[in-house]
Amino acid sequence: MTLLNETHDPALRSWLASANTAGGDFPIQNLPFAVFRRAGTPEAFRGGVAIGDQVLDLAAVAAAGVFAGDAQAAARAASEAKLNALMALGPAAWSALRLALSRALREGAAGQAALRPCLVPQDRVEYDVPARIGDYTDFYTSIHHATNIGRLFRPDNPLLPNYKWVPIGYHGRASSIGISGQGFHRPVGQTLPAGAAQPVVGPCQRLDIELELGIFIGQGNAQGEAVTITQAEAHVFGICLLNDWSARDVQAWEYQPLGPFLSKSFATTLSPWIVTLEALAPYRAPLQRPADDPQPLPYLDSEANRREGALDIQLQVDLLTPRLREAGGEAATICRTSYRHAYWTVAQMVAHHTVNGCNLQPGDLFGSGTLSGPTPQEAGALIEMTQGGKQPLALPGGEQRSFLLDGDTVTLRGWCEKPGAARIGFGECRGTVLPARG
Amino acid sequence: MTLLNETHDPALRSWLASANTAGGDFPIQNLPFAVFRRAGTPEAFRGGVAIGDQVLDLAAVAAAGVFAGDAQAAARAASEAKLNALMALGPAAWSALRLALSRALREGAAGQAALRPCLVPQDRVEYDVPARIGDYTDFYTSIHHATNIGRLFRPDNPLLPNYKWVPIGYHGRASSIGISGQGFHRPVGQTLPAGAAQPVVGPCQRLDIELELGIFIGQGNAQGEAVTITQAEAHVFGICLLNDWSARDVQAWEYQPLGPFLSKSFATTLSPWIVTLEALAPYRAPLQRPADDPQPLPYLDSEANRREGALDIQLQVDLLTPRLREAGGEAATICRTSYRHAYWTVAQMVAHHTVNGCNLQPGDLFGSGTLSGPTPQEAGALIEMTQGGKQPLALPGGEQRSFLLDGDTVTLRGWCEKPGAARIGFGECRGTVLPARG
Repeated sequence: MTLLNETHDPALRSWLASANTAGGDFPIQNLPFAVFRRAGTPEAFRGGVAIGDQVLDLAAVAAAGVFAGDAQAAARAASEAKLNALMALGPAAWSALRLALSRALREGAAGQAALRPCLVPQDRVEYDVPARIGDYTDFYTSIHHATNIGRLFRPDNPLLPNYKWVPIGYHGRASSIGISGQGFHRPVGQTLPAGAAQPVVGPCQRLDIELELGIFIGQGNAQGEAVTITQAEAHVFGICLLNDWSARDVQAWEYQPLGPFLSKSFATTLSPWIVTLEALAPYRAPLQRPADDPQPLPYLDSEANRREGALDIQLQVDLLTPRLREAGGEAATICRTSYRHAYWTVAQMVAHHTVNGCNLQPGDLFGSGTLSGPTPQEAGALIEMTQGGKQPLALPGGEQRSFLLDGDTVTLRGWCEKPGAARIGFGECRGTVLPARG
Repeated sequence: MTLLNETHDPALRSWLASANTAGGDFPIQNLPFAVFRRAGTPEAFRGGVAIGDQVLDLAAVAAAGVFAGDAQAAARAASEAKLNALMALGPAAWSALRLALSRALREGAAGQAALRPCLVPQDRVEYDVPARIGDYTDFYTSIHHATNIGRLFRPDNPLLPNYKWVPIGYHGRASSIGISGQGFHRPVGQTLPAGAAQPVVGPCQRLDIELELGIFIGQGNAQGEAVTITQAEAHVFGICLLNDWSARDVQAWEYQPLGPFLSKSFATTLSPWIVTLEALAPYRAPLQRPADDPQPLPYLDSEANRREGALDIQLQVDLLTPRLREAGGEAATICRTSYRHAYWTVAQMVAHHTVNGCNLQPGDLFGSGTLSGPTPQEAGALIEMTQGGKQPLALPGGEQRSFLLDGDTVTLRGWCEKPGAARIGFGECRGTVLPARG
């Protein structure tokens, strides 16, 4: 487990004033990674770190030779168009770079003059998917989501017998993962209308969101060698926001017996910023598994995982409809929850994924699965919020939504805050539904 | 559809005598692609074409400047360590290279002197996975397999209602795909023993094979743009053999509700040689869909697909146990079937995969799903051959097998032959079960 160190000190302030704004996502205690370039230019993408309202260009930092040793090696690895090389370096290098950045960005730091020319305003950049994602695995770690969804499909038997034993996951589609700000066309697919004898093909009528976190793997493991739960977090680079857009009508018709496929593979949206596990260390929480539930099998269990395997990441979903946009642009918040309610932790996902010898590689992505909390207001998907579409959400101005309509924009947000620690944020994960292609 | 041309002429012979051997896999009418290097050396892998008992080194051919125009551009693209660049060039370039190779390798060809130095004996090379596989999708195209498996899990309702409408598929794990000759450790995983109240963790007890074909995507499609069934085959580079090793006991416990995961992701083995669709043109066959079955929805239907969408690729599975190996090395053939029995074609897989706008990329891989034929002798997995393990296979020398034991080697083979066409083969796809890790 990551111990707190000087980079977590809530009293730290940066010489960059915008990093010290109360309630900001990117204070000096955060230092998340993205790949970026100046918007609208043909520049190469390269790694950057968020600080206040700026991006610190790591390619420029590396070229300037501001740092030395592991920190310089990490900055150089982060100069590429994808962060895989940085991810492959492992926790000691990530930590060295974080410490060097923290020291150089602090009030009074000697590095100020060298770093200032490496800053680019966030409102002038565009982002890309931060890694070459070799494989994307989507988990199902919220027992509340599994139960809510299960109740819609199987009222008498909502939670399957394996759920409390197996951190259920499945392979997702990597090619269609995009970055915050993207629009995507409403998918077309086969569905079986209620009462119909045969399926029809057409635009999805039950387009949904899934509020998830994305977990980027750092160092991989060799094929055939399981990662123990004790080692698991050393293989994790960091966490971002993830919206697993879902075509529920397509899903219902296609998913037996091999699981969801085209109902998910048309688009998945990530937030650009990856918050490192080290930055998240102050917000660890005990894993809340009811005492009368079966306790995890040994390969999924450790004292540290029980004590602080969960992460209290606050999550919010905002919906901006075309009508709300015209009325002034204020989105409706339709969900508030926390990642701390997940039944399975990041460490358990890694240990489970590799127990059979499956090899993880730097830049692989895990989705947490929809992060619904225990109450209806904490549901992370419209299908849950609306009881399968039967109880539409009431939005400001008299509008209603069962599922997404064309022009709807959904924005996920995440942040951590607690007494005695700085508030750090994840930025946003935003996507817009475009009409189906003709 | 690919028309027959001079490269398919069964009368063609090569100046390389070994290519003219009756019953050989690699006559001049085949010309499949792999990546290879001299075994045991640190040479870079590069593309090669099989001819007789040799590999024609395409990097050497490109460097020698033997070809011109599209054929030279294709040879140059095939000089890299993976074939993605060649795959991205598209059918015109692949066809130009095939024609140039066919002409240069023919008896009496002027190119003989230039090409001879580019030959490397196959028995002195090693192969690698031929593409950077961005995404791997496994389909379920054999209705016989789906019915056989369904009967084991749901005796009253073996075939699910969506099967005859939806070319069922799911995402597979790309990182653990290996090349023929590999050994892999028996996977460890969670299983629920019969009658037990809670699962156990340990080495898989029901390790199985799946006889499949692997289909490599050539040119991709943009996200949001479906590939029509008419265009579909222009996006396919070629076909290899694929063994989708499966841990049936893990699968039974984990697969609800999101499909197979760790039961498959520990290892998948490919044959090194990719036979192009153009080489397979003489072996096309009508799609055999019973008249009283629902006919495909329009996006999955075309006159050409009905007339010749199937491929008559003969398939065989050989099992060599440690005892058979000691007794002299003759493997037992445990399955013989043909790909022509598949319910869904390659073109239908492409059209279905992209109907929702999902983007395919050069080097993506599809698995056909287990290719069981209509009779028990044509079953492509042990779980089918043995009725779920209840009727073990009788092997020569009195041995029996329900599922694979440590030390077992499984070899898939494939070939095409028919009157008026040359016989062409796929080589072999071989893998060996190593003991579980301790």
